[in-house]
Amino acid sequence: MSQSPSFLEPRSQIDDPSSPVARFGADEPLVMDAGMALAPWQIAYQTYGTLNTAKSNAVLICHALTGDQHVANVSPVTGKPGWWTTMVGPGKPVDTDRFFVICANVIGGCSGSTGPATINPATGHPYNLDFPVLTIRDMVRAQAALIDRLGIASLFCVLGGSMGGMQVLQWAASYPDRVFSALPIAAAARHSAQNIAFHEVGRQAIMADPDWRGGNYLNEGTRPSKGLGVARMGAHITYLSELALHRKFGRNFQDRSAPTFSFDADFQIESYLRYQGLQFVERFDANSYLYVTKAMDYFDLAAEHDGILARVFKGSATRFCVISFTSDWLFPTSDSRAIVHALNAAAASVGFVEIESDKGHDAFLLDEPEMFSAARGFIDAAARARGLS
Amino acid sequence: MSQSPSFLEPRSQIDDPSSPVARFGADEPLVMDAGMALAPWQIAYQTYGTLNTAKSNAVLICHALTGDQHVANVSPVTGKPGWWTTMVGPGKPVDTDRFFVICANVIGGCSGSTGPATINPATGHPYNLDFPVLTIRDMVRAQAALIDRLGIASLFCVLGGSMGGMQVLQWAASYPDRVFSALPIAAAARHSAQNIAFHEVGRQAIMADPDWRGGNYLNEGTRPSKGLGVARMGAHITYLSELALHRKFGRNFQDRSAPTFSFDADFQIESYLRYQGLQFVERFDANSYLYVTKAMDYFDLAAEHDGILARVFKGSATRFCVISFTSDWLFPTSDSRAIVHALNAAAASVGFVEIESDKGHDAFLLDEPEMFSAARGFIDAAARARGLS
Repeated sequence: MSQSPSFLEPRSQIDDPSSPVARFGADEPLVMDAGMALAPWQIAYQTYGTLNTAKSNAVLICHALTGDQHVANVSPVTGKPGWWTTMVGPGKPVDTDRFFVICANVIGGCSGSTGPATINPATGHPYNLDFPVLTIRDMVRAQAALIDRLGIASLFCVLGGSMGGMQVLQWAASYPDRVFSALPIAAAARHSAQNIAFHEVGRQAIMADPDWRGGNYLNEGTRPSKGLGVARMGAHITYLSELALHRKFGRNFQDRSAPTFSFDADFQIESYLRYQGLQFVERFDANSYLYVTKAMDYFDLAAEHDGILARVFKGSATRFCVISFTSDWLFPTSDSRAIVHALNAAAASVGFVEIESDKGHDAFLLDEPEMFSAARGFIDAAARARGLS
Repeated sequence: MSQSPSFLEPRSQIDDPSSPVARFGADEPLVMDAGMALAPWQIAYQTYGTLNTAKSNAVLICHALTGDQHVANVSPVTGKPGWWTTMVGPGKPVDTDRFFVICANVIGGCSGSTGPATINPATGHPYNLDFPVLTIRDMVRAQAALIDRLGIASLFCVLGGSMGGMQVLQWAASYPDRVFSALPIAAAARHSAQNIAFHEVGRQAIMADPDWRGGNYLNEGTRPSKGLGVARMGAHITYLSELALHRKFGRNFQDRSAPTFSFDADFQIESYLRYQGLQFVERFDANSYLYVTKAMDYFDLAAEHDGILARVFKGSATRFCVISFTSDWLFPTSDSRAIVHALNAAAASVGFVEIESDKGHDAFLLDEPEMFSAARGFIDAAARARGLS
């Protein structure tokens, strides 16, 4: 926590030309839940806005499974706008004119932070499956080291959706004194059996691809794009809702009014899914997909507290706001309710907003005015409570 | 309809050693919705019980996507009991002491009926993807030809679950005068966008497997077992419910109390799914999976009636009973309600039983006492109405 931002490494031209990277050497290993100490390691991140003199206006955004640090800037990989420009920016609920906003690529990811595609200094080859299997807590530990490096003792707010929401909860659990307010959206305190099942199908699809090469595809010049594409297609269905799919695609045929009686993409929904798969493999690493899905599967915040979630948050002074969406069947409202009940049982400060939406889990990434107004209200109130202008 | 059972071909030792097979020659082509005439072709089936003199006690069971004709006898392939011995047998709701029960492998399947693995007489090689893409109506046409061959003018009852229920509805729509009573269970009058999406992921998983060889794996001595296994794993999740998965597996680890921090099957649910995939590829043909899922996707009974399902059943004298399960999210109760509403609008005779169950779509194959009593009551009443003892 002693170094100021001026001590940071310059932007890495190798790992990600557009993001600053915080590097940690052999003397600063990342001790992981699997028991290994990762060193050296690095974390790539973006910031927006200005840290105030009191360093009290820092907001950490945690990204979801396939997200990255480019929350509010054009992605250098896809050329598309940041993934949450509706939520983060000047005048937005997370107002970059007021707050110093940080978003870091998760450890295990593939957007500049150390992950399975990183060169293992011990071998000179990518880690591949020698990379330690990681947890949400490992991701948060790495973020805490970054926050230390940025010289920030306490975060004004930590927020994120889906796996990002898991990190928010883990932050509040691991570092209660460093989180003034927490906003988990479309999240859960533990991954369900059904969600583990869907993830496992995706992993098996990747591992079934002979171009995966037992995880060593980077050494062998192949890419398991077909397997990763199938994994993405399956996962994508779970991010939507039956009603959203029906409204958007229904049983409409692709450019035709009749079936082709072939295995071409006959229906619009088939064509859409194939496109999602193709797009995804251009920007994501297959081994990262294995590691990050596994981290989500392992997530069970109450496991070390005899399954009693309230104990996790006992004595917490963090202000919480929990948001869920009615049509989200991947992280259903009942999961958010369980968090709220636990926080209430722990006598924590908590608000709960269940938003009526037919857009499914992905609603947190979409234009949901009620989400924006709930987030804005919660953040504004927290800012007043912290004495931020 | 002129030939009696004695004219049937003997059991085929090649296609299926345990099932009688009805063969149709070049003069009896199966005219398919895709516009092709399939000839020669054959249909493998099982029967139970005795056809009465009036030939008025015949019951047709329609099987689901991965089912076969072995509804109430030990499967010669798996050595396991028939797939619906709880419903069909002496003293069971479909009482083989009273009824002559027929179950045929669907056209396009892989259990003795003509399908993509059948030798194409024009080439001397398996049809593979030259087999015409088929529809639920084609399956029903083939069954009608079998029923003709068996000398049965009218079926006392047609019943089945899932894709079997689609066939039941198609029977009632295509041959209203030949269906005295109809019992579609956990079915729908059209496949939803979400269900098409899940099927497409499964198909892509198969096609992504290089051992699929563009569909020609039988010629090349390979089998796309990995792709088919992934397809089955994904589909299997949709047959259950979140609650059933939670109750059965929860987040329990496999033989251990702690995570392995590896990509082994850590959780019981992972191990269970992998086992389901492995079992399935032993008994099912990958191309059949492509064809039969596609047939389900095409199913939209009202499509030729401007989307108005009631018109399909206008003037129908068939007695219907529609059964659904509360936790079935693949063919949700709302789909069954739509059928019931249409039948009511068509002034048809219809009963509706929504069964409280947390077992998901697969409930129709499981021990569901309410389903058995509903089926028994419906069938008994229909039997009285038909003057069957």
